[in-house]
Amino acid sequence: KKVVTLGEIMMRLSTPDYKRFVQTESFDVNYGGGEANVAAAICNYGLQSSFISKLPDNALGQAAINQLRRYGVDTQHVARGGKRLGLYFLEPGVSMRASQVIYDRADASITEVELSDFDFDKIFDGADWFHTSGITPALSDKAAALTLAALKAAKAKGLTTSLDLNYRKKLWTAEKARETLTQLCQYVDVCLGPDATLGFHPEDTDVDLSNLKQDDYKIVFKQLADKYGFKYIASTLRGSQSASDNSISAMIFDGTEIHHTKQYNVRIVDRVGAGDSFASGLIYGLVAGLNAAQAAEFGIAASALKHTIPGDMNHATVAEIETLIGGDGSGKIQR
Amino acid sequence: KKVVTLGEIMMRLSTPDYKRFVQTESFDVNYGGGEANVAAAICNYGLQSSFISKLPDNALGQAAINQLRRYGVDTQHVARGGKRLGLYFLEPGVSMRASQVIYDRADASITEVELSDFDFDKIFDGADWFHTSGITPALSDKAAALTLAALKAAKAKGLTTSLDLNYRKKLWTAEKARETLTQLCQYVDVCLGPDATLGFHPEDTDVDLSNLKQDDYKIVFKQLADKYGFKYIASTLRGSQSASDNSISAMIFDGTEIHHTKQYNVRIVDRVGAGDSFASGLIYGLVAGLNAAQAAEFGIAASALKHTIPGDMNHATVAEIETLIGGDGSGKIQR
Amino acid sequence: KKVVTLGEIMMRLSTPDYKRFVQTESFDVNYGGGEANVAAAICNYGLQSSFISKLPDNALGQAAINQLRRYGVDTQHVARGGKRLGLYFLEPGVSMRASQVIYDRADASITEVELSDFDFDKIFDGADWFHTSGITPALSDKAAALTLAALKAAKAKGLTTSLDLNYRKKLWTAEKARETLTQLCQYVDVCLGPDATLGFHPEDTDVDLSNLKQDDYKIVFKQLADKYGFKYIASTLRGSQSASDNSISAMIFDGTEIHHTKQYNVRIVDRVGAGDSFASGLIYGLVAGLNAAQAAEFGIAASALKHTIPGDMNHATVAEIETLIGGDGSGKIQR
Amino acid sequence: KKVVTLGEIMMRLSTPDYKRFVQTESFDVNYGGGEANVAAAICNYGLQSSFISKLPDNALGQAAINQLRRYGVDTQHVARGGKRLGLYFLEPGVSMRASQVIYDRADASITEVELSDFDFDKIFDGADWFHTSGITPALSDKAAALTLAALKAAKAKGLTTSLDLNYRKKLWTAEKARETLTQLCQYVDVCLGPDATLGFHPEDTDVDLSNLKQDDYKIVFKQLADKYGFKYIASTLRGSQSASDNSISAMIFDGTEIHHTKQYNVRIVDRVGAGDSFASGLIYGLVAGLNAAQAAEFGIAASALKHTIPGDMNHATVAEIETLIGGDGSGKIQR
Amino acid sequence: KKVVTLGEIMMRLSTPDYKRFVQTESFDVNYGGGEANVAAAICNYGLQSSFISKLPDNALGQAAINQLRRYGVDTQHVARGGKRLGLYFLEPGVSMRASQVIYDRADASITEVELSDFDFDKIFDGADWFHTSGITPALSDKAAALTLAALKAAKAKGLTTSLDLNYRKKLWTAEKARETLTQLCQYVDVCLGPDATLGFHPEDTDVDLSNLKQDDYKIVFKQLADKYGFKYIASTLRGSQSASDNSISAMIFDGTEIHHTKQYNVRIVDRVGAGDSFASGLIYGLVAGLNAAQAAEFGIAASALKHTIPGDMNHATVAEIETLIGGDGSGKIQR
Amino acid sequence: KKVVTLGEIMMRLSTPDYKRFVQTESFDVNYGGGEANVAAAICNYGLQSSFISKLPDNALGQAAINQLRRYGVDTQHVARGGKRLGLYFLEPGVSMRASQVIYDRADASITEVELSDFDFDKIFDGADWFHTSGITPALSDKAAALTLAALKAAKAKGLTTSLDLNYRKKLWTAEKARETLTQLCQYVDVCLGPDATLGFHPEDTDVDLSNLKQDDYKIVFKQLADKYGFKYIASTLRGSQSASDNSISAMIFDGTEIHHTKQYNVRIVDRVGAGDSFASGLIYGLVAGLNAAQAAEFGIAASALKHTIPGDMNHATVAEIETLIGGDGSGKIQR
Ligand SMILES: [Ca+2]
Ligand SMILES: [Ca+2]
Ligand SMILES: [Ca+2]
Ligand SMILES: [Ca+2]
Ligand SMILES: [Ca+2]
Ligand SMILES: [Ca+2]
Ligand SMILES: [Ca+2]
Ligand SMILES: [Ca+2]
Ligand SMILES: [Ca+2]
Ligand SMILES: [Ca+2]
Ligand SMILES: [Ca+2]
Ligand SMILES: [Ca+2]
Ligand code: NI
Ligand code: NI
Ligand code: NI
Ligand code: NI
Ligand code: NI
Ligand code: NI
Ligand code: NI
Ligand code: NI
Ligand code: NI
Ligand code: NI
Ligand code: NI
Ligand code: NI
Ligand code: NI
Ligand code: NI
Ligand code: NI
Ligand code: NI
Ligand code: NI
Ligand code: NI
Repeated sequence: KKVVTLGEIMMRLSTPDYKRFVQTESFDVNYGGGEANVAAAICNYGLQSSFISKLPDNALGQAAINQLRRYGVDTQHVARGGKRLGLYFLEPGVSMRASQVIYDRADASITEVELSDFDFDKIFDGADWFHTSGITPALSDKAAALTLAALKAAKAKGLTTSLDLNYRKKLWTAEKARETLTQLCQYVDVCLGPDATLGFHPEDTDVDLSNLKQDDYKIVFKQLADKYGFKYIASTLRGSQSASDNSISAMIFDGTEIHHTKQYNVRIVDRVGAGDSFASGLIYGLVAGLNAAQAAEFGIAASALKHTIPGDMNHATVAEIETLIGGDGSGKIQR
Repeated sequence: KKVVTLGEIMMRLSTPDYKRFVQTESFDVNYGGGEANVAAAICNYGLQSSFISKLPDNALGQAAINQLRRYGVDTQHVARGGKRLGLYFLEPGVSMRASQVIYDRADASITEVELSDFDFDKIFDGADWFHTSGITPALSDKAAALTLAALKAAKAKGLTTSLDLNYRKKLWTAEKARETLTQLCQYVDVCLGPDATLGFHPEDTDVDLSNLKQDDYKIVFKQLADKYGFKYIASTLRGSQSASDNSISAMIFDGTEIHHTKQYNVRIVDRVGAGDSFASGLIYGLVAGLNAAQAAEFGIAASALKHTIPGDMNHATVAEIETLIGGDGSGKIQR
Repeated sequence: KKVVTLGEIMMRLSTPDYKRFVQTESFDVNYGGGEANVAAAICNYGLQSSFISKLPDNALGQAAINQLRRYGVDTQHVARGGKRLGLYFLEPGVSMRASQVIYDRADASITEVELSDFDFDKIFDGADWFHTSGITPALSDKAAALTLAALKAAKAKGLTTSLDLNYRKKLWTAEKARETLTQLCQYVDVCLGPDATLGFHPEDTDVDLSNLKQDDYKIVFKQLADKYGFKYIASTLRGSQSASDNSISAMIFDGTEIHHTKQYNVRIVDRVGAGDSFASGLIYGLVAGLNAAQAAEFGIAASALKHTIPGDMNHATVAEIETLIGGDGSGKIQR
Repeated sequence: KKVVTLGEIMMRLSTPDYKRFVQTESFDVNYGGGEANVAAAICNYGLQSSFISKLPDNALGQAAINQLRRYGVDTQHVARGGKRLGLYFLEPGVSMRASQVIYDRADASITEVELSDFDFDKIFDGADWFHTSGITPALSDKAAALTLAALKAAKAKGLTTSLDLNYRKKLWTAEKARETLTQLCQYVDVCLGPDATLGFHPEDTDVDLSNLKQDDYKIVFKQLADKYGFKYIASTLRGSQSASDNSISAMIFDGTEIHHTKQYNVRIVDRVGAGDSFASGLIYGLVAGLNAAQAAEFGIAASALKHTIPGDMNHATVAEIETLIGGDGSGKIQR
Repeated sequence: KKVVTLGEIMMRLSTPDYKRFVQTESFDVNYGGGEANVAAAICNYGLQSSFISKLPDNALGQAAINQLRRYGVDTQHVARGGKRLGLYFLEPGVSMRASQVIYDRADASITEVELSDFDFDKIFDGADWFHTSGITPALSDKAAALTLAALKAAKAKGLTTSLDLNYRKKLWTAEKARETLTQLCQYVDVCLGPDATLGFHPEDTDVDLSNLKQDDYKIVFKQLADKYGFKYIASTLRGSQSASDNSISAMIFDGTEIHHTKQYNVRIVDRVGAGDSFASGLIYGLVAGLNAAQAAEFGIAASALKHTIPGDMNHATVAEIETLIGGDGSGKIQR
Repeated sequence: KKVVTLGEIMMRLSTPDYKRFVQTESFDVNYGGGEANVAAAICNYGLQSSFISKLPDNALGQAAINQLRRYGVDTQHVARGGKRLGLYFLEPGVSMRASQVIYDRADASITEVELSDFDFDKIFDGADWFHTSGITPALSDKAAALTLAALKAAKAKGLTTSLDLNYRKKLWTAEKARETLTQLCQYVDVCLGPDATLGFHPEDTDVDLSNLKQDDYKIVFKQLADKYGFKYIASTLRGSQSASDNSISAMIFDGTEIHHTKQYNVRIVDRVGAGDSFASGLIYGLVAGLNAAQAAEFGIAASALKHTIPGDMNHATVAEIETLIGGDGSGKIQR
């Protein structure tokens, strides 16, 4: 089974030992991005994955590719060229001090991507699933055009498609996001993290968006599923006690009803990529034949474990995730 | 607005990764001291500050100056000379293991300071506030004489003055402390952390010092304020669940009543300098025009955030502190 | 007072900063093993100890010896030779992610130990106590023969003997363990962590092993004490909320009744060697003249503090342990 | 005495321990840039300096300012705003493997600088010298306009001015460089590192530029000095045996003759900023009253010592430089 | 073009900062082995490579695979299982102190390899070259049988084959080595580092093996080429001034004459894998169509650059190698 | 065979990676001192040694003891008490930048040592050699009295005694040094590094001290040997090309003639303790039965290897030293 993902991979520069940006004398280096993290986790779970992107033709672009290869991702379809590697600086938070992220991704190579950089017919050959996010079309008009073309091509080749909305208000306006995303969603089977940009119409319902109740989710999800033809809509729920302690769970709508997963209380080592871990766990579960509720349980358990692992990518194994689903979160030494 | 502080700055040598002194193969280097930490935080909040001290004329003394300059403190009035830089060794605790501090500050340059090393007329020119602590006069007779001279000069120039008592029984006897501090307090407007050395007379009151009740503080503070002419008396309250988890709050007496701040539960990265953070936050608030209760809230929120920052000095910004005062301690990622 | 211990000391290679094995670019190096950890702690508490083992005649074997010497253990009786130093790889867990241990100890020098490598008459001269564990005889037939010979020699020289059972199912079968351990236990005065391998016969009692109640422990311990002539049987109890938070306590049977210690809630820095800390604290207490209940309190408080110290060995001092027993686990800074 | 410099300061991210970009898991952080390095060295030598630039209004911009403050530079005139902090990635070379630099400075805040960001009348008040380089005007048209305005203002206020040409072909074309630099040089007193962009006319001389002889330098320098009114022209000479071993010397033309300095053979710790060290040493010497030959000797000795110091900035002291000039490069321990 | 290599990959644990084994508190982790290093370098030069081996089915085996994938090697044919990952400990030398290596590779998974673990028909499909070394058959009888089978299969499929002799006297006797290697060499086209185990017969020649002259190499190589049908015989020559400075060159015999390469003087960062760098450079050159002399020049220049790169594997690029061949070893900064 | 040494052991705090004091964010920790380094090396060579000193009764004093124990030194006779552990800060030099040492040893515990802290009868029981240096009596009058008492006691017990003069002008005046050292030398058998403080009288000879010729050494050494009854006088000779490259040799006078050792050119990793390495190598050689010339060769080869080892203490083995004496300084990998 093979999953293809499309997006940006950035160099992440994070301060060690809870230092603030103004204190640090070094940065730990990692490479990550939503869809890249999904691709790596898919390989980690024993399936195949291929990542599509554009990276500069220098040693830093190569280092990003190497990180993907290290964790098993096929990178032969990554285009090379453009101006620079996107970066982000991370100052991990603790207790009541929030993590700080400074993005430095303008003019990254992927913003200048061309359709001609890729041969989707070849890329999707033998693939079962295509995944991308709402961040990729937000990067540039060219990136948006590529996202649309990829979704169309994937559907045409019979793949299942998924989109993690992830609306980022610093990258584009709500209006532009809505315009683009409503178009993309026509080609999406599984929608993660739906939000206001998808154009839910409360006037046709009893839902008060400013005071959302438990039952309202079903009404919202049903309307969106009908509008876009989503097979599944899934969403994580996060309670943030502090930058060190969070509680997470998820829900999935299968067209008929909403299934709620267990809730996990996590002590945080590295919170970045936790949402991508839910996405990749869910995709893995669905590709591996689990039902929606089971796949969501796999996804949220994977996400819980991700919080304990440094870097953007999830290195928890299927066996570890299944142990946690089975109820053992006791952390006893495994000898 | 400009704040002047006087005191010792030491090199701090701390073990990394929770190692004990007998295990460590390296020390992390920082520089700090009560009044130096206040000076750095004042700059951090956007005001000006100048630090007065004496440091050896070698590269280690220079490194201490550099740390102050790095965070914006004016160091042009620091005298150079004397025998050595004061040091302290820190073994950070965790859980039920307490932090250990080994001071190695005897014969530090500041203990041999001379009044002629400083021109207070120049130093206090344009300044609004002068701050020092009860540790400085405890270091040597010369340091005590300097502290007194500085307080007198500050008052003569119309500055507001503050003193953080910080009685340290390893540095001097209670008797000598009382003798010196009662003299110094004549020139102090804002007193932090009052204690037995100030000579509270319970016999004139209903207060039972061995069983202090909530209402007794007001009686104690009133008597001390009357005796010394303090405008404000402030004090922090710390509950220590373990070396990793504390709860902190503060109270301030404005001559009439006591205001209690919120209480914060903090997970500790570095507890050193938390008291200085309260002092600097309080001073900042009062200089910036907040009332006593507001200034104490600013101080204790600053102190709470300090616990999450490595080193002696506070690098939390005014915006971060105000967010915490506003009620958001959720630690959500700031992108 | 002098304690002799016999066992394996391994090189421990652990990942830093909560990295997983597949992520790490370095390992922190420590050396440890159950009986070696006991020997080091005994010296830490001010008694003398000597460690018996066999180590390869290369720089790695020397480094293991150096670690023991560093913490005061007499290593002059360690035999040199054999093929290799035993290793174990440790990936410390956090939150719901469990610590992983990969042992690489096959063919370690101690597995090829010969009785002629040691002169027990000389080794036990002036010694008061001999300690070993159920891991040592599990390593090889030669190691088992040595363990038996050592226990016999210790008894013959009038030493008190202790054995920490520590059944490891990856090292030998339950059947072989039972056969060996029941023989060894004839020469044991103090048994730690009794388990099924000792051959408790429930049919002679009211005890239902699949549903052990508080009172049943006494029946089990009584039968075992009678069978093997144990003077004391002690055991720790661990509740694992997560890999980061555990609660621990202990109980000791003195032939008549079971004493329960306080329970401590620990936040974990390094959980390895916590059981050995209980053993060494208990032995120290008994050698130092405490009664069984007091010795167990000392042992469990030592073990609690061990969880906060990196590495296998305990560097908490007697004074720190007594402070904790006295009720102060507040972790306030010690200046 | 006070020196003002104008230019860009970048974050430098360098690989530790001779790792290549594709290997590294961390970067060492430093901040540097030609004119920033000059400003820091000037303070190091006991004079005052102020640095002019534009930096983003975030924690990374603040960190760059903090590094300048740490080493004594006045940063109160640095403008804040714009898009991002310029970066460069450094892979230090060794032996026959050359150091690699990847610049990532496009769209740095200084490229969008406005004349209205600065009040040169205030900036140059009390200053003696103004220094900038040929890199600054190459960054953008706005930066070029600022450079010209600064030079004009400096001359108008009676300062001595210096320009380090540093032609970088990746930043602009030779034609555009020539056009801009010939205009700037009208306002320059001391020119460092003259090159082809300054428009030397060989046809008026006996000089064969493709085969430059020792005596030709005088002819070239004389023509340029006459053309632009330079008081001094100075240039370093570097022989590169390998990335680990270089030999350096300098020459200075004082309008009449060329003085050659001693040559130093250096083993390289960090070669970056060595040219800036020559510039700052030369400026210091001339400001301090040395003659041209002496100032160049000071500059090249300072540059030699810089090769042994990590980071972009020079932390060699005046005393150390004078010891080296005096002939002692033996490196004997100073106790 | 695709190269397949067969051999062992070990975890390498090396001391940082020139520490000795008895001093170190950490090890830097790398993974390497002769044939693995060749496979990685081949990918580095832009060709494809696949590595064949057997690795344990645990996280350490996975980490070794990840290192290979990171640098582009196809690892899908690596068998999983067996007892353990081979290790080696490295203490890098400097000046007159030699590097120390402690191998800990007994019972590594590859020693228990079975022919049925591999499908050579599939493995060699589309491949052009097969490479292994004399270390692999020395590991165990099963590994020797696999090596022979692989060489036979490679020849049968029409691949060019190469063998790097690397006789290790700690792994097997000279007699057993000779017996095995003379059999393997029947299937080898390119022989690297021929030595006494190949059974050169001096009695048929004028060669005095105890006093080998320049011209004798041709006679030796000719006899061996005739005996085994080698197309090329290549060998490196190393002069060791100290552990920090070596001079290296190579020679290659093409059946007719011996070509000598340039000699390089290298300052050493990491000497391990330098011989493998020559092998991979030579193979790359021959696969890429260079003649024997050119390929050897490529190989020795690659090897020279390897000495400057930490770890076992070569990350010098084709462009860097060609620059060095072209004569520029000046190490000037590449901006 | 057993050697006893007396002196101070200090904590050494050194900057990593060639950073200057004003740059460093951490210090590497080591412990060393002339006589402590000798004691450790003696154990390293397989003999026994005991170190006498006084150290503070805190964790830092314990850490110094632990370092000595780690390398095999008997520390049971070290007195505990006094004010503080002596420190020194080290900034390692490179190329033409000299290493900087800042001593911070005033008021160290050893300066307050009492004769009653030691029982020399017990300490010297079974010992063969006593060694100290001219630094110890320079620390305080009490330390000088102890040194004299120790030398007398050693002679009375029949030990051979050695003194390494090491005149340090920052610790005492030349006059006081001469007065003290001439008294001590009455009890010294082997004198290392004789200098002007010993009161050589040139007026009785042909020697011109301001222009010392090769033959003059013999005259000087003869007069001193006669005056003080030295059996051997030894001295090292160091040529300092730079802080990175030195050449070293030694000479020894046996009462009749001077023997010169080989000269070694060393590339320096850590130069501290190189003189102590010569002393300990010489002592080892003489104790082990070598003649004077052989012992000096052993000492200088040990010293050469010390330059390649981080820290104050020598970890080169007897086998490595003998290999170097045998002529192999090629640094070839030892597998
Ligand atoms: Ca870290
Ligand atoms: Ca990584
Ligand atoms: Ca660590
Ligand atoms: Ca750390
Ligand atoms: Ca710092
Ligand atoms: Ca350790
Ligand atoms: Ca470094
Ligand atoms: Ca820096
Ligand atoms: Ca390093
Ligand atoms: Ca180090
Ligand atoms: Ca690596
Ligand atoms: Ca050490
Ligand atoms: Ni750290
Ligand atoms: Ni720092
Ligand atoms: Ni730095
Ligand atoms: Ni350690
Ligand atoms: Ni060390
Ligand atoms: Ni720091
Ligand atoms: Ni890290
Ligand atoms: Ni990594
Ligand atoms: Ni560590
Ligand atoms: Ni490293
Ligand atoms: Ni690496
Ligand atoms: Ni990492
Ligand atoms: Ni060490
Ligand atoms: Ni350690
Ligand atoms: Ni590495
Ligand atoms: Ni280092
Ligand atoms: Ni470093
Ligand atoms: Ni720094």
